[in-house]
Amino acid sequence: MIVVMKDGTTNEHIDHLSHWLNEQYGIHVNTVVGTGTTVLALVGDTAAVDKDALLRDPQVDRITKVQEPFKLANRRMHPQDTTVEIAPGVVIGGKKIVVMAGPCSVESREQIIDVAKHVKEQGATVLRGGAWKPRSSPYSFQGLKAEGLELLHEAHKETGLPVVTEITNPKNIELFMDKCDCFQVGARNMQNFDLLKELGQTRKPVLLKRGFANTMEEFLMSAEYVMAGGNENVILCERGIRTYETYTRNTLDISAVPVLKRMSHLPVVVDPSHAGGIYWMVEPLAKAAIAAGADGLIIEVHNDPAHALSDGAQSLTYDSFQETMTSIRRIAEAVGREV
Amino acid sequence: MIVVMKDGTTNEHIDHLSHWLNEQYGIHVNTVVGTGTTVLALVGDTAAVDKDALLRDPQVDRITKVQEPFKLANRRMHPQDTTVEIAPGVVIGGKKIVVMAGPCSVESREQIIDVAKHVKEQGATVLRGGAWKPRSSPYSFQGLKAEGLELLHEAHKETGLPVVTEITNPKNIELFMDKCDCFQVGARNMQNFDLLKELGQTRKPVLLKRGFANTMEEFLMSAEYVMAGGNENVILCERGIRTYETYTRNTLDISAVPVLKRMSHLPVVVDPSHAGGIYWMVEPLAKAAIAAGADGLIIEVHNDPAHALSDGAQSLTYDSFQETMTSIRRIAEAVGREV
Amino acid sequence: MIVVMKDGTTNEHIDHLSHWLNEQYGIHVNTVVGTGTTVLALVGDTAAVDKDALLRDPQVDRITKVQEPFKLANRRMHPQDTTVEIAPGVVIGGKKIVVMAGPCSVESREQIIDVAKHVKEQGATVLRGGAWKPRSSPYSFQGLKAEGLELLHEAHKETGLPVVTEITNPKNIELFMDKCDCFQVGARNMQNFDLLKELGQTRKPVLLKRGFANTMEEFLMSAEYVMAGGNENVILCERGIRTYETYTRNTLDISAVPVLKRMSHLPVVVDPSHAGGIYWMVEPLAKAAIAAGADGLIIEVHNDPAHALSDGAQSLTYDSFQETMTSIRRIAEAVGREV
Amino acid sequence: MIVVMKDGTTNEHIDHLSHWLNEQYGIHVNTVVGTGTTVLALVGDTAAVDKDALLRDPQVDRITKVQEPFKLANRRMHPQDTTVEIAPGVVIGGKKIVVMAGPCSVESREQIIDVAKHVKEQGATVLRGGAWKPRSSPYSFQGLKAEGLELLHEAHKETGLPVVTEITNPKNIELFMDKCDCFQVGARNMQNFDLLKELGQTRKPVLLKRGFANTMEEFLMSAEYVMAGGNENVILCERGIRTYETYTRNTLDISAVPVLKRMSHLPVVVDPSHAGGIYWMVEPLAKAAIAAGADGLIIEVHNDPAHALSDGAQSLTYDSFQETMTSIRRIAEAVGREV
Repeated sequence: MIVVMKDGTTNEHIDHLSHWLNEQYGIHVNTVVGTGTTVLALVGDTAAVDKDALLRDPQVDRITKVQEPFKLANRRMHPQDTTVEIAPGVVIGGKKIVVMAGPCSVESREQIIDVAKHVKEQGATVLRGGAWKPRSSPYSFQGLKAEGLELLHEAHKETGLPVVTEITNPKNIELFMDKCDCFQVGARNMQNFDLLKELGQTRKPVLLKRGFANTMEEFLMSAEYVMAGGNENVILCERGIRTYETYTRNTLDISAVPVLKRMSHLPVVVDPSHAGGIYWMVEPLAKAAIAAGADGLIIEVHNDPAHALSDGAQSLTYDSFQETMTSIRRIAEAVGREV
Repeated sequence: MIVVMKDGTTNEHIDHLSHWLNEQYGIHVNTVVGTGTTVLALVGDTAAVDKDALLRDPQVDRITKVQEPFKLANRRMHPQDTTVEIAPGVVIGGKKIVVMAGPCSVESREQIIDVAKHVKEQGATVLRGGAWKPRSSPYSFQGLKAEGLELLHEAHKETGLPVVTEITNPKNIELFMDKCDCFQVGARNMQNFDLLKELGQTRKPVLLKRGFANTMEEFLMSAEYVMAGGNENVILCERGIRTYETYTRNTLDISAVPVLKRMSHLPVVVDPSHAGGIYWMVEPLAKAAIAAGADGLIIEVHNDPAHALSDGAQSLTYDSFQETMTSIRRIAEAVGREV
Repeated sequence: MIVVMKDGTTNEHIDHLSHWLNEQYGIHVNTVVGTGTTVLALVGDTAAVDKDALLRDPQVDRITKVQEPFKLANRRMHPQDTTVEIAPGVVIGGKKIVVMAGPCSVESREQIIDVAKHVKEQGATVLRGGAWKPRSSPYSFQGLKAEGLELLHEAHKETGLPVVTEITNPKNIELFMDKCDCFQVGARNMQNFDLLKELGQTRKPVLLKRGFANTMEEFLMSAEYVMAGGNENVILCERGIRTYETYTRNTLDISAVPVLKRMSHLPVVVDPSHAGGIYWMVEPLAKAAIAAGADGLIIEVHNDPAHALSDGAQSLTYDSFQETMTSIRRIAEAVGREV
Repeated sequence: MIVVMKDGTTNEHIDHLSHWLNEQYGIHVNTVVGTGTTVLALVGDTAAVDKDALLRDPQVDRITKVQEPFKLANRRMHPQDTTVEIAPGVVIGGKKIVVMAGPCSVESREQIIDVAKHVKEQGATVLRGGAWKPRSSPYSFQGLKAEGLELLHEAHKETGLPVVTEITNPKNIELFMDKCDCFQVGARNMQNFDLLKELGQTRKPVLLKRGFANTMEEFLMSAEYVMAGGNENVILCERGIRTYETYTRNTLDISAVPVLKRMSHLPVVVDPSHAGGIYWMVEPLAKAAIAAGADGLIIEVHNDPAHALSDGAQSLTYDSFQETMTSIRRIAEAVGREV
């Protein structure tokens, strides 16, 4: 941690502050006197030092943290790639690119089983589908809830595909434990710390979506919440961020793929459906994601998008999903991987 | 709802779509044929029409919603200002500007009672203080939780000040019911719909903070979640949004004050402490908020900011709170109100 | 153009407004009376109607434009892809992906010729290099200016590579005419309309970079400025936008590639160097760009990045450029194109 | 400047880098060895050190600048407030708040003189009005140009009000010299460095608007461009920034007022008309600006807003300008100033 002092700070002041830091936190302070500016370089376990409190010192001008605040998710602590096994043989983060596909919402037994069969046939190895649906409007369809979860489980039994589905309330964790293979934490809940902490107590994989206005550092801090509980099976998911551009629903932050892979050892997947918000962008964004190094994709596919109960605009039909899979395969090969 | 069709759409296609809309939703469709472009103006209860599904029609180019999606929070439905009474005589939204003050976190019995007495003396009429603290890092102080809530209640008994404090998990609602006078929903939970729905089942006031990357329309939709449950005691709180500017922690969206007052009948308060993120911005931002028409302020005040367990940088000392109150009073008078 | 009227607007008011619109602009007005809301659908050449003036009508609530404001750049008016020939055989927008490469700034005769030879050898077909450098600080190196332009021209004569270089002031156009093959308009000048208008008077290709906070619509409107002067040789360049994320210098808006290709017939290239701001992001972003459908790339390559006079952090060495070209070739093949 | 080295950097590497920094830039390097991380604190004139070049060192992890890059605009170098005299007795930055008012565009002799008389009567002391109008669309009204400038000059002769008007091209500087009292640099030209440099060669005041996506540091660097030429008469103008919020045209960054006053000694004015983009927001935003400490306002007033040739939606009528002036006066008094 680097503390920049204001011009004209006295030596007494600096001595006093250094003494206090040492006493309070066991920190050793190196004073570097420059032309016009003095900086204090703090050495020791500075994670505990309260930056806010230091900023109250009337002679402190600015503070810079030198160490990243996430530890367990940090690649420095764990240089090898982590792989997360969602089900036997379905591993995220290895050579094989994993495609998770399915409808935005589970709507009926027929629908979810039909979609599951079709996406499996095209090469998807995980079934996605929403049972609890967080919606901006209280007047929109909120999902089939427990019934939806049950239907996902039936689709799993029918097809063998492991299931990833969104959880929005810690009180439902027990219910989910036997019915799905991977929890999904949605963008709006990325900083629902109560939920993250309780998921950290399980050992089931967590697909953590980046909040649409969260930095990559905050994203990794949320992964850290889950990992700090002992659950290291975290999959990071970039799904578009909020910017001033209104043509697309969100702006897919494609740079997040190489950056997250560099900062962290956790696997990274991309959601091209929510990022663009419209079906014709799914294929180009999916291809870009794989080209940039993503370990997987989560894609919305619907048997009848025009009559979907939610997010129909961005869902692929069976035909367009098939085409998308074909193009993805080519890109995967071009980067030395396979689908 | 206005549906813009692509060039070259046939009359048959339009007839078919119009018929389907009528059958499915009871909507009447007016077709307006322009030079090059045909638009359909949908008349009826278009709230139920799924915009996403319509976008799947290959001939649909764009869709514009004409009606705002929030109803209960909408000033059109309720032209008079709503006032929310937090405690007998403490009314938000009337002539009197309400100042809520207190520490970021409750730290001890002595601390919270001391701060409560001081802020009351200076004219604050509500005590704020955090018991459950959502923090970006799992390694930061997370609040005293139930003990903190109890201490707030003691401070209330000691000073008579009603208490507003943040709730992060629906399972704690019962616990909060007797110990505070107003729930606070933090920015990170503005779209925690499970929490909002359950707060809508109570009749206790809810101070709803705007998410740091949420539009004003989304903000009002979250108010709508609470109101749809029957709880109309919602207070809107602008606390800064996330932008590209890094000098300030957030960018206080001062325009939100006149805009929210125009769109909605709900009272609007401003949090100048979180917006700027540093103590010396609190006073100018507080004055700006009142000048722009805010009904109240929520301000962090600490007995010893340099040793606060959270957010010390932005907390006011007793002295600076006193000065701030003096300036606020002058601005309140200048806009025909009082503190 | 759709005009939404406020509740309670009288028929007289609507008649009066319709009459005025007809008289003033020759517009025909269709009145659609809904439940609670009346909308006016304006038919005719609404491009001339001043939206701002209409908003002054106290009964007008909101206005939506139905037609895109750009015409010449619009794919509707010109369904086939446009190709821009920078030099004989160097065509942007065809099957072949064009790579433009070179240093951020021209620094010396030796440097620019050496870089030109190396990038040509690796398959680049256009030489980029800055002579006039717009820098945030007046104390930074501002480019070799006319001398730099001359050196670029020498590198062209030596290698045959056509040259693209940035112009910042209309008064230099004449100077550039004989010394380069394509003007570059930088992000900061995307709305320097005086410059765009004068470039529209030439017939030399213009590589127009998207402003870092401009929407795609504004971007196309700037292309329209050049095209309206008669110069249709415009190449669009996405180079990252400004968002709240601070880890990357800018956020590459990868969605802009499919969106711009859909909205417009103009070719689209991507600048992965400025987007990420650091050398190790160039390769993954370049691959993503080609996968998403870009027609070309503009990449910074330096003979000695550690001692570059500007933007050294993001420049590739000869070795890393070679690796990048190899990967790009594979992706190009995977999408049915070639480098 | 602080350079954070990667884990495992050898002492030889650090010695070599330190030696090079010393030789190249005359910088003295202090090495601070922490637990796991080594940082180099660079002492001396680090303004010349190329951060980008240093980032190329494979062992360098991150770099933090300790000193702000602007010097002449920096309050550290110039603790007293600067005042800028636009005309005899019209001083920006003193006790008196200066209101600049007038139409977006000059449209005719009658119009500009009529508006000038009215705004003067209400207490405005500077006349604003656009002659050259930068517009997003090439098909919109582009201003009366030289004729508009002449008409502004006539309005000045008629009323005595000094004139501020926008310049978009350095080639027009001479023309403006005798016809206006203050140059305005618009948001889109805030980083048109060619223009700024040439304005720096004059001694006429420059009202510099913040670019809608520029940080406050970049804003001050642009002021530095003008000041570095010897022209210290720079007035900073906050006019709203671009964010994800679409209800308002821009988001007025009210915090910029206290921040800019703290970072710099230059006077700060606010443009509430462009920030909100609609007439009914002008008054609350103007009041907020004065409450937050602004030294002046620039407000659009039109004799007939509904028929204005540009930006009619945000222009005040004479009546609403009068009301606004009345409220501003009250706020000015409440903060110990006067209009």
